[in-house]
Formats: sequence, structure tokens, C-alpha cells
Amino acid sequence: MKKILHINRERLMQRIYTLGTKGGLPGGGCCRLALTQADKEGRDLVVSWMKESGLTVHIDQLGNVVGIRAGQEEGAPVMMGSHIDTVATGGFYDGNVGVLAGLEVINTLNDENITTRYPVAVAFFTNEEGARFAPDMMGSLVFQGDLPLDIALDTVGIDGTTVKENLEKIGYAGTAPVGKSPLHPRAYVELHVEQGPVLEEEGFCIGVVEKVQGISWTEFEITGQSNHAGTTPIRLRKDPALVTARIACFMRDMAKEMGGDQVATTGVIELAPGLINVVPQSARMTVDLRNTDEILLQQAEKAVFAYADKVAREEGVSINRRTLARFEPVPFHATLVDLVEATAREFGLSNMRMPSGAGHDAQIMARICPAAMIFVPSEKGISHNIQEFTKPEDIEAGANVLANVIVKLANS
Amino acid sequence: MKKILHINRERLMQRIYTLGTKGGLPGGGCCRLALTQADKEGRDLVVSWMKESGLTVHIDQLGNVVGIRAGQEEGAPVMMGSHIDTVATGGFYDGNVGVLAGLEVINTLNDENITTRYPVAVAFFTNEEGARFAPDMMGSLVFQGDLPLDIALDTVGIDGTTVKENLEKIGYAGTAPVGKSPLHPRAYVELHVEQGPVLEEEGFCIGVVEKVQGISWTEFEITGQSNHAGTTPIRLRKDPALVTARIACFMRDMAKEMGGDQVATTGVIELAPGLINVVPQSARMTVDLRNTDEILLQQAEKAVFAYADKVAREEGVSINRRTLARFEPVPFHATLVDLVEATAREFGLSNMRMPSGAGHDAQIMARICPAAMIFVPSEKGISHNIQEFTKPEDIEAGANVLANVIVKLANS
Repeated sequence: MKKILHINRERLMQRIYTLGTKGGLPGGGCCRLALTQADKEGRDLVVSWMKESGLTVHIDQLGNVVGIRAGQEEGAPVMMGSHIDTVATGGFYDGNVGVLAGLEVINTLNDENITTRYPVAVAFFTNEEGARFAPDMMGSLVFQGDLPLDIALDTVGIDGTTVKENLEKIGYAGTAPVGKSPLHPRAYVELHVEQGPVLEEEGFCIGVVEKVQGISWTEFEITGQSNHAGTTPIRLRKDPALVTARIACFMRDMAKEMGGDQVATTGVIELAPGLINVVPQSARMTVDLRNTDEILLQQAEKAVFAYADKVAREEGVSINRRTLARFEPVPFHATLVDLVEATAREFGLSNMRMPSGAGHDAQIMARICPAAMIFVPSEKGISHNIQEFTKPEDIEAGANVLANVIVKLANS
Repeated sequence: MKKILHINRERLMQRIYTLGTKGGLPGGGCCRLALTQADKEGRDLVVSWMKESGLTVHIDQLGNVVGIRAGQEEGAPVMMGSHIDTVATGGFYDGNVGVLAGLEVINTLNDENITTRYPVAVAFFTNEEGARFAPDMMGSLVFQGDLPLDIALDTVGIDGTTVKENLEKIGYAGTAPVGKSPLHPRAYVELHVEQGPVLEEEGFCIGVVEKVQGISWTEFEITGQSNHAGTTPIRLRKDPALVTARIACFMRDMAKEMGGDQVATTGVIELAPGLINVVPQSARMTVDLRNTDEILLQQAEKAVFAYADKVAREEGVSINRRTLARFEPVPFHATLVDLVEATAREFGLSNMRMPSGAGHDAQIMARICPAAMIFVPSEKGISHNIQEFTKPEDIEAGANVLANVIVKLANS
């Protein structure tokens, strides 16, 4: 008879709340920017729990931490993981839930005296958020091998200090190798809060993540001619504010028309000089386009760029375009995705297949092993905000799915 | 035989350049914010020129300065004037041209030994720009009587100090009464640079200003819901950035469709938090609408406000509207306008009737006496900028028209 594991909700939630006190903010939430003192305190706490849970803890050269529970056989572990760094006004759940649920799975295996065939690991990766050091997902990129260690270590953060000196300062400049490491897993599964409103809106408990959206970030710098708002007739204007507005409207209309997964966001509009009675001299705006389909994402980019050029020409302003980031969509491993879905069904949990709109360490791990993600609902879709919230029963449900997926993988 | 006066271009230009050295900026232009030390130096210089030119100088309780040249008869003077305060990055011409051309007219009368029937005056008004203390046109408003002296004196500027203490500090807290003052003129004529591109574009030397546009300034505060740019489907967004963009586009399309004098400007768009990957939580934008026809201006306001409410409702965001300023259009005195036009023709100067898109002291003086304005071209329409430029020959032409209009008025 197949045993279905049930994790301990109280133990898991207690750990989430306790970790939340490290870098805790007044009014809730926390600020644990990567490699700060607060991050060190969070790391120390999680490492102490890993050790209490009997794990062998490895710290690699970029400060990625992997705790391994031995299996009947040697070999690459089945890995759970995520991150514990946060943005400056982060919540308790983003990243932390994946790491602590992984630890909870380990504890449940301990409680049940289960020894899996292969080792089981739980990991947290350095600087997933990218809020202090660019790029985001830095730790998993170095762990996996696509980002050279030296480049990552020399990265200068928003406060002018490097990753290397901060790793040394907080005592997490480890010795485990990165890149082609023996720590590389045979499979990787990450539980994460959705950070969007879809599961809540649709009334589902578990998101079976099929893929991660491709991301295209572009900055437009538009230069027109600053003029008096009263004395310059409309026909003589070269107004960069109007051009940003036209592009923002076009992006929305295009995304709506394309439908599917396509989203388009104008998060930044800056006008200079920014005075009520002056036609601006220049404007900066950002374009965030995402789609799970690379062909469609390219179509969206092409349409926005062509439209921007057209309105700029019509208005007589110059426009410069700069790519700030570009990631192709990442499909997760079909068999693993099916396994997540089947496991959610075994628990009778309502579930839906969905893409991830945000980037996650799992998409980096997907480059070296079968990977998948499990989403649980974010209240009102709020994330990167101290009001981020996911119900304990949803976290429990997600951790139960994670536990049973991991045992199946580790025993197969 | 009617004598046509010709002013002395070299003397006038020399004074314009010399006054420009007070608060002079590297690279050109000057910063003479009202009632600063630089403004004091500029005032002292102009007052010394007034005295050298034989004028009786009166300083009123708000620091407005009026220099009077006696006529054959006592009574209210015919007044020329403008301002010598500048914005933080001002040019040599805005305001200064009107004051120094007025002084040049006085000198020309002196040179020609002409005594007019009525006195002739030249004035400069305190804080026309409003760049340090709100409102703009403060000096003429107090001089004319619609802004109570106490309120003006107690006004706190951008640096936290009051008009009163700065007037005292620079020695321009005068004693001449404001409001119903014996200094009130029988007529007022202001020469000013256009601050817009129309005269240059149309190839005219003299603008015969018929009226000042009405101004409507509104601020919108739009509150939506901050969300992750990747994980929030378009249909679930409440995006204040989109609403600002829609309003900005509507304003432009409306102004173009209305035609005539209607202009509409979006000078400020501020998005919070203003991050590339976050649907903004809130936005602030400003709306600057102007028309020379009050009925049309009201129509424009109504259309923009109704549209803003509509798009806000469609997007599910809240919108608050605040009036920042509202001035009705001001028509100048028809007979004076005709006189300006006829005088320009006497000189064979190309000229066009036009509205003023900017606010000027002349529109305040129009509340107590016949008033008019003469415009000369601004190169590329640039103003409130250190690159502000008007050709010496155009300034000379404007000053010649001013001189002959004033003599006609002072002898009538």
C-alpha cells in the first residue's frame, strides 16, 4: 500500500514566522536583502534547523546552501529549494515557503522513519531577488554553471560593495564547488507562492506550473523639445510625454488583443523637467513584455518597437531603445509536471495548470535536470510587499504535494 | 508733423546684458529668483538707472518699483513695465526686456527733450515668476489690489522663508501704498518676449497681443493596485499608469480636434513605486489646459474630466481631481490693441494679432486700466531656459513700437 505523507503544518508555520523575525519590519514583512546582516541571521537560523534535522550541510563558493539527507543509495539527490533573501519590503512567504517546506518534508521523512532510495536535499540559493546585486537568480545561475563564479563575486551592489566581500563578512564564502558540482540534483521541485492573483481569482488551491514566461525588458529614452505649455501650439510640439502615453496605451491594447499569457506593463514613466506648465524635454519609460511562447513574445516586441518608432517619427522626437533583460520562456519537465498534478489530485486538492509570470530558481535548475514548480495562492496577488499573505492551509497543501512528489522521485 | 521716436538699440542691449550678469549662470542665462541677493543686485542696478534717467522712484509695500517721469500735467501716469525676477534657469529676456525697454523709452524722451502731457512711468513688479513664492504675478496682484498685502507678505517660499522677511532683508520693503494707489496708471503697455515659437515660425516681427489665454491647471491622483508585472493577467489589473496614459492621449487628441487656441499639456506623470516589473500602485499627473475663449476652455475641462472618470471606472482605479490654478481669459483693451497694431505698421514692421499663452502682469493691470502687450519673437520659442534668445533688432523694433504707443497715450 502506498503511504501518503502529511507534513506538520504547525511546525512549518512556526518556522515561517520565526524566520520572518530576522530583518523583520514594523507593521509586518521583512527586509533581508542578500548577504546583509539580516540575511546572515536568517541563514544561520535555517542552517541550524537543517543540522537539527540531521542534514549534511554544504556551502558552496557563492554561499548557496544545500542540506542533504542520505538515501539507501549514493548519488545525486532529489532537491527541493528556493531562496530566503527578500526585497527591501518583502513578505514572509516569497522564497521562504519553498525552503522551509522542503525542510518540513525532511522532518516528515524523519518522523516517519522513511529512507528514500536516493538522497533528498533542500537548498537555498544566494540572491534570488536581485534587489541588492544584479542579476537576480544569481545563486542558482552560478550553482548551475551558466554564470561564472568570478563575475558573480565581483558584482557591485547598490551600496557599492561586492558579493565577495559580503559573503566573507557574513561567513558564507563556502568551499563546495560550483558549476559541474556533485551537489547537482537528479530532479528539482520548488514550492512557491504564486505572487499573482490567478489561483485566488479562479478558486484553486494548487498551481501546477507548466512553464515560466519569457521576459523582455526594454527602456525607451525619448528626446523632444521642452517648450512653454501655453505658448506652443499643438502643431509645433515635439512632446516626449505624449509618445510615452501613446506607447503605454498601445501596449495594453496589444496585450488585450493577443490574449493568452501575453502581459505588458509600463512600470516607469519619468518626464524631465516634470513641471506642470512645460512640455517635457525628455522622457524615460520601461516596457515589460512576457509570454510563455517565444514566437508570440517576439511578435509583441516587434509590434511595440515598430509602434514606438512610428509615433516618435510622427511627433518629431528621437527615441532610443535599450534591452535591459531578455529571457526565453522555460518549459518545465512534462513528466514532473504530470506528477505534480497527479499528486495534487491524490490529495483531492483543486488545481490548475498555469505558467509562472515571475522568474524562479527552478527555471535555472531546469537547464541541468528535470524540474517543476508548485504554486499556492497569494492573497490578492500581492507580493514583494509586507502585506504578502498565503493561508496556512494552502501552504500545508502545497507542502503535502511537495512531500509526496519528492518521495516518488527519490524512490523511482 | 508727427515725430516718430527711435530708441537707442546699443544702450538698451547694453543694459540687458549688464542686468544679465546679476545672478548670471555659467553657460549663459541667470538665476534671479524673487527677493534673493541676486534679485537685490538686479533691483539696485535698475533703480540706479532709473535715478540716472531722472525718474522719481517709488517703492511700495510689496517691493514693486515705479519710476515716474513728470508730464506737463499732474495725474496718473501712462505706465510701461514688466518684471526682473527670473526662474532658476532663466534667460536675459523674459520680463527684463519690458522693464529695460521702458527705461530706454524714458531715455529717448530725455534725449529728444520731449515732455508728454501726462507723466510716463516704468515699473517692475515683485515675483512675477512665482518660482520662489506662489502665486505668480504676486506683485502686480497686490499693486492692483486683488491680493491682500498681508497674505502676500506672509507667503512662505520654497526655502521656508516669507516674502516679508526677504523684502526687509534686501531693503525693498517700501512705504508707497498698494491697492488703490496714486501710482495706478491711466494705461499700461508691456513689451515682452513671446516665449513661444509662433512669431518666428510665421515670420513676423511684432505680436499684437489681443488677449491672454485662460488657464486651467488640474492634478489627478490615481490609485490602483500594485501588482507583479509577470503574474497579473491583463484582465485583473487596476493600473493607474494606463489611466494617465489614456488621459494624456485624450488631451492631445481633443486639443487637436478643437483647434484654434486650445492647448493641452501633460507636464507631470509620476508613478509609484516606479519599478520596471511592478504595475504601479498610484500615479500623479497634471493637466494644463488653455484657451482664449472661456466657453471653449470650460468645454475642454469638462471633456477631460469626464474622460478621466470614464477610464478610471473602466480600469477599476480611483481618481481624485484637484484644481491647482484657474484663470479666465483676459481680453486686452481694443483701442490700445488697435494703437499697437497701427504703430507697428507706421514702422513698416511685419505684425500679427495673437493671444498670449503665458500669464503676464499686463493681464492684472487690465483690471484697473486699459492695457495691452507687444510681443517680439523668441528664437525656437525657448523660454525659462538659459538658451532663451531674441534678436537685438527685434527688441529694438518692439521698443520703438512701445515708445511711440506710449507717447501717443501720454499726449492724448
